[in-house]
Amino acid sequence: MIVKKSLAEGFAAFEEPWSPRVAGEINNMQIKLAKLEGAFIWHRHDEEDELFLVISGRLRMEFREQKAQVVEAGEFIVVPHGVEHRPVAEEPCEVVLLEPGTTLNTGNVDNGRTVRNLERI
Amino acid sequence: MIVKKSLAEGFAAFEEPWSPRVAGEINNMQIKLAKLEGAFIWHRHDEEDELFLVISGRLRMEFREQKAQVVEAGEFIVVPHGVEHRPVAEEPCEVVLLEPGTTLNTGNVDNGRTVRNLERI
Repeated sequence: MIVKKSLAEGFAAFEEPWSPRVAGEINNMQIKLAKLEGAFIWHRHDEEDELFLVISGRLRMEFREQKAQVVEAGEFIVVPHGVEHRPVAEEPCEVVLLEPGTTLNTGNVDNGRTVRNLERI
Repeated sequence: MIVKKSLAEGFAAFEEPWSPRVAGEINNMQIKLAKLEGAFIWHRHDEEDELFLVISGRLRMEFREQKAQVVEAGEFIVVPHGVEHRPVAEEPCEVVLLEPGTTLNTGNVDNGRTVRNLERI
């Protein structure tokens, strides 16, 4: 089956921040839509690299061991596996995430912000 | 190393249509930028799914066994492996491609439009 989707319609389908929705799959990777607002938790993914493409708003990606990067709409950043990071959105921000299907949103941390069984849109 | 890139700057760095540039890597996948213009060739990828996210212009994805899909800016389409397809851009079109690093642009066809050793931007 061919999947075609509009990012705008996808983002319109949910409100909850920090709760990515799965919009499609490419081999073992998933494309997810996420809304970010405020600061997330520090975490790392031991095996999975993670791409954030900012569609609207602005994302500040903080790192333990190097300076933060500000990612504007129309820019993307790749966070390699093993790198501890904390996404912060000082204003609401919409991002496309691309990462292996095995990726847990909170990486090595399992707490109240961990989301399993992501909804599909 | 953290890779952060602007799509606009990436697209400004080359002109040639049907010659994807590698902009980043996420595990075994690559994110590529491509400019499309006119009709490409019919081909399929036996193992690799392929995502096309249209950034500007409009892409018509033709299929042998089902009707074509028009993909507008802000929309994406996933072409599953094994599905014969032909991308057509009646006007110049910029796309983000997401696919395994093993993907050859012309899939099962090897001809003058095949590009190996993609440039990185």
